[in-house]
Formats: sequence, C-alpha cells, structure tokens
Amino acid sequence: MSKKLTSRTEDYSKWYNELVVKANLAENSAVRGCMVIKPYGYAIWEKMQAELDRMFKETGHENAYFPLFVPKSLFEAEEKNAEGFAKECAVVTHYRLQNDPDNPGKLRVDPNAKLEEELVVRPTSEAIIWNTYKGWIESYRDLPLLINQWANVVRWEMRTRLFLRTAEFLWQEGHTAHATKAEAIQEAELMNDVYATFAQDFMAIPVIKGRKTESERFAGADETYCIEALMQDGKALQAGTSHFLGQNFAKAFDVKFANKEGKQDYVWATSWGVSTRLMGALIMTHSDDLGLVLPPNLAPHQVVIVPIFKNEEQFEAIQDKVNIISKELRAAGVSVKFDKRDTLRPGAKFAQHELQGVPLRLAIGARDLENGTVELARRDTLTKETVDISTLTEKVTGLLKDIQKTLFDKALNYRNSHITEVNSFEEFKEVLETKGGFISAHWDGTIETENKIKELTKATTRCIPDSFKAEEGVCIYSGKPSKTRVLFAKAY
Amino acid sequence: MSKKLTSRTEDYSKWYNELVVKANLAENSAVRGCMVIKPYGYAIWEKMQAELDRMFKETGHENAYFPLFVPKSLFEAEEKNAEGFAKECAVVTHYRLQNDPDNPGKLRVDPNAKLEEELVVRPTSEAIIWNTYKGWIESYRDLPLLINQWANVVRWEMRTRLFLRTAEFLWQEGHTAHATKAEAIQEAELMNDVYATFAQDFMAIPVIKGRKTESERFAGADETYCIEALMQDGKALQAGTSHFLGQNFAKAFDVKFANKEGKQDYVWATSWGVSTRLMGALIMTHSDDLGLVLPPNLAPHQVVIVPIFKNEEQFEAIQDKVNIISKELRAAGVSVKFDKRDTLRPGAKFAQHELQGVPLRLAIGARDLENGTVELARRDTLTKETVDISTLTEKVTGLLKDIQKTLFDKALNYRNSHITEVNSFEEFKEVLETKGGFISAHWDGTIETENKIKELTKATTRCIPDSFKAEEGVCIYSGKPSKTRVLFAKAY
Ligand SMILES: [Zn+2]
Ligand SMILES: [Zn+2]
Repeated sequence: MSKKLTSRTEDYSKWYNELVVKANLAENSAVRGCMVIKPYGYAIWEKMQAELDRMFKETGHENAYFPLFVPKSLFEAEEKNAEGFAKECAVVTHYRLQNDPDNPGKLRVDPNAKLEEELVVRPTSEAIIWNTYKGWIESYRDLPLLINQWANVVRWEMRTRLFLRTAEFLWQEGHTAHATKAEAIQEAELMNDVYATFAQDFMAIPVIKGRKTESERFAGADETYCIEALMQDGKALQAGTSHFLGQNFAKAFDVKFANKEGKQDYVWATSWGVSTRLMGALIMTHSDDLGLVLPPNLAPHQVVIVPIFKNEEQFEAIQDKVNIISKELRAAGVSVKFDKRDTLRPGAKFAQHELQGVPLRLAIGARDLENGTVELARRDTLTKETVDISTLTEKVTGLLKDIQKTLFDKALNYRNSHITEVNSFEEFKEVLETKGGFISAHWDGTIETENKIKELTKATTRCIPDSFKAEEGVCIYSGKPSKTRVLFAKAY
Repeated sequence: MSKKLTSRTEDYSKWYNELVVKANLAENSAVRGCMVIKPYGYAIWEKMQAELDRMFKETGHENAYFPLFVPKSLFEAEEKNAEGFAKECAVVTHYRLQNDPDNPGKLRVDPNAKLEEELVVRPTSEAIIWNTYKGWIESYRDLPLLINQWANVVRWEMRTRLFLRTAEFLWQEGHTAHATKAEAIQEAELMNDVYATFAQDFMAIPVIKGRKTESERFAGADETYCIEALMQDGKALQAGTSHFLGQNFAKAFDVKFANKEGKQDYVWATSWGVSTRLMGALIMTHSDDLGLVLPPNLAPHQVVIVPIFKNEEQFEAIQDKVNIISKELRAAGVSVKFDKRDTLRPGAKFAQHELQGVPLRLAIGARDLENGTVELARRDTLTKETVDISTLTEKVTGLLKDIQKTLFDKALNYRNSHITEVNSFEEFKEVLETKGGFISAHWDGTIETENKIKELTKATTRCIPDSFKAEEGVCIYSGKPSKTRVLFAKAY
C-alpha cells in the first residue's frame, strides 16, 4: 500500500494534492493544466450530475447541446464578457496537420489550412447560445426558454490545481430567456436556491447564499448570485453561481421578442453553473488525515463488505451469507460493493476503503457466521460496532442517514464558528491571520477599497449574504459610510 | 404550422434535412459543420446514453474522463492512427486573445501567446489515454482495465450533414487494456454484440455484425468489428465499431505489464464507440413522409395526451380525468406528456406530435368523458381506435410493445429483402442502381479491387458478416480466386 498522507496541519495544500491522487480521484495529464478524472472520482461526479440533472428537470429545464467552438466575431460581441475571458482562451487557428518535411515521421500544422476566422474553445457559452436563441425566439409564446447543457469548457489558467482550477473542466451551464426582468431575476434566484439545496442535502456542505459585489460579478452580468462554502483551512470556496444577465446578451446578439401587445423588446437572460470544482469542495469539507470522507448521498458505494477468511471453505460460507445480506441491503436502496479480491489482505482493503471514503465498512468472518453478526465501521467517526444480522438493514440505513447528518452538522458548526464580525481593519487582519474563515465587515462599496484590502491581505469580498439586513456603519478600511456588511475571506 | 415535408420519393436527402430541423432535433450552428442539438433531439440522445451506459456497466466497465486536447507529440506517436486523422484535426496554437489595435472593440490572437507545442482537439482519444495508461499498468493485477468515456470529439470533415457527419459530435469511446490477445479479441467482440443488442432492442434497427476489410479498418486497429444497418433509401450506415488494437498503442506508448511469471509484455488493447450518428440511423430507419417515427423504447414521451374542449368547464373535467389516467400510466412505467397548451388547436398539436414521432397519441373530449373512453392513435401505422378507460393502461402497454416490435419487423423485412447475392460485376452494377441495399459478392481480397469498385460504382465493402461461411469463388471484378463473400453497399 502507498504510505500515509501528509497531515492537514503539516501542509494542507500538500494533503489535498496527495489525497486526490491516492484516493484515485484524478491526476494531472500530459496536457498542461488539464486533468484526468479517474473512474472513482468520475463515479462521484456522476452521482452529482444525476441529482442536479433531476433537480433541473423538476424545475422545468431541458438539456441541449451547443458547439464547443465560438467564432471570434461572436465571442467578442458582448464586450464585457469577451474582455473577462479573452486572456484565458484556447484558440483554434488551423484545421489540418501534414507530414513535417524536416522531421520524417512527425507532423506539423499545415500552413495552408489556416481558418479564415479563428475559433475560441468555449470558456462559457453565452455567445454561441444567444446567437442561436436569436433564431428560436420571436414572440412571448417562445418564452421562457429554460435550457441546460452538460459540457466541457476551457479557461487557460496559469496556476492550476486538480478539480479546483484546471484548464479544462466539466460543468453544466443553464441559459434561460425570459419576457420580463422580474421573471429572469426570479429564475436566477431559484437556481441559486437549487444549488444551495444540492450542496446541503447531497454534499453535506452548508453554504451561504448571497450576491457578489460588482467587481466579483461574472463578466457580462448585472447581478451574480452565489453560494459560498468554507473549507477546513478557513478559506472560502465559491461553489456555484447564478447570473442575472439583464438584456446584455440580447442586445449584443439582437434577440427581441413581440410581447402580448405586439411590441418588440429585448429578451431578459440568466445563466448559472456548477463544475467539477464541486469535487474539490466535497473533498476539502469532510476529509481527514486518513483520506477521503464521503457523504452517503454521493458515495459510489455506501457500504463495502470485506470478507475475513482463512481458507476457501470459509470464503464460500461467507460469500453465501454476503449474497443474502447484499440483496436485502440493495432492496432497501443501499449501494453495496463486495470486495472479494484475493490479491489484498483485509487490513490493506480497510486502508484503501478508508482512503477512498466509503461511508460504512462491513467486515464478516467465520466467527461472525457462527454468531450471526457482522462488524460495522463508520468512516466519519471511525467507530466500530458488532451488529446482529437480523437487524442489519435497518441499522445500515439508519447509520447512513446519521453519517449524512453528522457530516453536515460538523461542517455547519465549523462554518458558524468561523464567521467573525469585525469593526476595524486591525481586527480584520488579526482574525484573518489567526482564525481565518468569513469575516463580516463594513465596506464603503468601492472597487478601490476592495482592491486595496485584497492587495494588503489577500482577502476578497465573497458575497453580501441574503440574510444580511441593511445596517449603517463605517468602512473598516476607508472610514467612509457603509450601508451593509459584506463577507470577506481568503478564497480558493 | 410549418408546411409539409418534402416526400422521401421526391428527394430523400432533402426529406432528411427538413425532418431533422422541423422535428426540433438539431440545426446547423454559426460554426462551420458543428450542430446544435435541440432539446427534443437531445432527450432522445439521453435515452440512448442511459441504456448504453447501463449496458457498459453491466459488462464491467467504468466511466472516466480524459483531456480534450492531445499534444502533437503524443498524437503522432502511433503512426497509422495519426496518419488516419491528421487531415481533419482542429489545432489549438494560441492561448490568449488581446485587443486588436487596428480594430477598436475587436479582439485578435495574441502573437505572444503561442503554445510551445500545438494541441490537437481530440478526434479520438487512444493517444492521450494510452499515454495515461502507462502510469496505471504495472502488472497483470492491474488488468483488465475496462474504461469508457462520454465526450465530444472533433473531425474537420469538409462535407457535413446533421447527425450523420459533423465536425464536432458526441460519442462514447471505450478503451480497454488486457493481458492476452485472446481476451482483448473477446472484449472487442463482446462490445460489438452489446451495440447490436442495443440497436435491435432499443432502436428497433436490425444490424449485420461483421468485420471490416483491411482498408475500411480504424486507423491503428488490427481488426475492426462493426454493426451495419440499412436505411430506407437502400444505403448502408455503419452504426457502431469495436476495434481490436493489438499491441499497437502499447508499443507506441511503451505500456508493458509483468505477467504472473514476472515477465514483461506489451498490453493488448481495444477501443469501441458509437456516436450521435445513431440519431441519423434512427431517423432514417423508421420515419415517414409525415415526420419522425420513434420506437417507444427511445421516445422521450411514449404517450402524448391532447384534450379536446370547447370551454373552461370541459377542460377542467378532462384535466381531472387526465390526471387519473396519467398517474396510472406512469405507475405502469409509461412516460406521458399532457399537452394542455392553450396557444394551439388540437389539429395543430396532432400534426406536431406526428412530426415529432410520439408513438401513441391519446385524445380525450367531452363525449369521451360521458362514454368513459379515449381515442388512441398509433404513429407507426396511423390507425386509431376508441378504447375503454377501464382497460387503458393494459391497452397502452400492449400497444407500445407492439409498436416497438412492428417497427423492428418492418425494418428487418426491408433489410432482408435488400441483401442480394450477385456473381458478376454486371449484376452488381444493376442491383446497385435499380434496387440498392447490401450486395453479397466474391472479392479477391485486395485494396486495389475495392478502390476500383468504389471508383466505378461508389459502393464500398461494408463488412464480412459473422454469419458468412468460407466459400470458394471468383472475384466479381478481377476474376481472381476468392475465399469468402463480402457485403458491398453505397453507404452514409
Ligand atoms: Zn478554527
Ligand atoms: Zn426496394
């Protein structure tokens, strides 16, 4: 087996990188900044996708698929959006390779196959989608248009980390069109709520719902709603965003509709997305020095069964019992894996399943067969107990619910104890350095102050939480008047 | 409503193009050769994906995700594969745009952001995957490696058609690694069988399983297994391929394993894929001059319910009944859509659902309520019948099964009556021109003859069917000896 993980206190960042690779979630590839998502990591992502997809469909959305490439002339049409992404675009300029005359057996780009117009590999799809919507929307009868896409996107980030920031990542992007401003805002808020529900009920991650400050908004948005989570190292992580795009894209792509009175007006838009970055949030919220800890609602296998035997005869007897147990557990909706590999000893299997965060481990040996018992071990608390097989299914379903809740409560307690109200910049800096987490502070509302605070402390505004009421105060940095507190944090 | 489709006899190709767009399946995009898959088309693709994914998992495969880009040096490593795809590669050469000093408000490629090594947008992923497998495989214990990926790929085709041939398309690609040649061949054959089962049981398309001739093999494969279908115009369509790759990629990427005796050997490989091209096959196999005809096993909605009412009161009464009916149908596993739009008259709804191929239409009006009946109309046969509500669920489930079977049988009859054995080139040409379909003929086994026949007739070898026995004969073109017949056809 691989040796122990670096501990979190020793080097949190190293711990994360090692965990991702050793738990078989993902690894770096031969392409700078692009990752390979390994089967076990992908299985978790598939569970996330399935739940999100169900939630999108339940709220009236349909899936579709739009091109990977965006012609440059479309990409630049919405200026703020283009400006926001131009510096990190992969650009296709040629459509053919040819034999390299100077290097036999090698290829080179065919200089005669230059595209007339360069194609941007989509960093996000507003441009190509709104150019398409132009052909789909004529009147109010065509609205609302509620579409989602599961896709890969590319943003040429210079400093990348597995799941958290990669040049290519997987995501979903919803793109909706509406007849009224109010309806579009309602949609953007609804989808932020969907993300919050998903994070809390499936990922067991408490999130703060709020709005971004202007400088942290999506390029091209009039308002960005977001959910913010807190990692175990006191850094925040933006887990999902939902944008009210106003009429910006409708104007850039000339998408108008005839309202009920027959008058032409520009269409109102939203877009919203979550990505494989959620995998990073999931890992960093719950895991420990032994490895991954998965909430049962997203675990590829909720229960792994490890047989403990000295000979073939014992194995056969155990296997017969396991088949009965598994069938009953599966009938109760529990996903079960029987780890009957003969290439690993039980101890090595235990270590692997611990590293991979399987919520419950069920060990069964010859003496268990005699006693009609099994041993159950919880991954989250590392506690074990002997359970009578007659009550096993009930016990397992109860434990899975309890693990899900325990993980959420633990994360919630941590998060709640790491939101600190401060009233001076000195206090701000001290809390940031000693305690971390979210800091609630008055701010004058200017980008200058945000930039200055970021420059001095590396903390950025995360959001103005929905729960924050208007409150007169004084900016901790500039001393100018402030009308509301905002949450700051160092962030991923 | 849009006007009628061009009929198939009038112009089959035009009929297809119109149907794809009017049935809201897909449309061309602003990017040359790339399509937009619209929500209704995507919903059919999602049903295909779900069934295939289940079948892959049931045969022991796991999903993973590999990078979109392939560095040129990896792309060219397996020479035959590289040669096969070099002429149709989209190539990323730069990673940044900048403001164009000559055109205010426009962007241009930043000449200072040229990649050191060009990145090929994957046309297929053997190269990037086998480069990754090198790190995953050390010994026989790591084998077999059974992985599938759902992804987009890009092949810069010059002549494109919606679903059938597009520059970007969606597909799945399985990539497996094995300790022995026999096991790899068995896997390639197994997955071709899985494809055949899927085509027959879900798409209601009969397929011929066979092997490609050398010239029609996948670039880099030692053997290509395939399933071949026949469209209504007598042209063949390759619906899926499964490749035995020998040790070609293992050698190109130096992927060795230690066998049980500790000896090093190169790993054996397969790859296999089906794509959104299947949508084209589905459309062209079953549809008619009124539009799409969908097999119930892949229809997004198996039953659409259209209320027929003169006033709000009637509508309310019908809706109450529809709610009861729908609940019962859904409980029986039938997917139901209640089309209660008040912007369209029943006749227009009928035409739309016909165009979109919904297998069963259920109409219910005020008199039906009195009589306790509904009207059921089959999309495939266009027949209608009045059905007592008390027997509705049983009737519907029975009809859906019957439609699925009827579509398959009809396609099978057509296909079987369009396989013609010929024994001379004259006969070959006559059958090809007058009847079309598959032509079974003796061929001398040389690429020269294949090329000559293709040049003269546009027909290509489709496959050597698994069902064909060795048979001594004489090549219809060259007169040289032949050991087996092969199927020729004009093909998509
Ligand atoms: Zn603390
Ligand atoms: Zn015919």
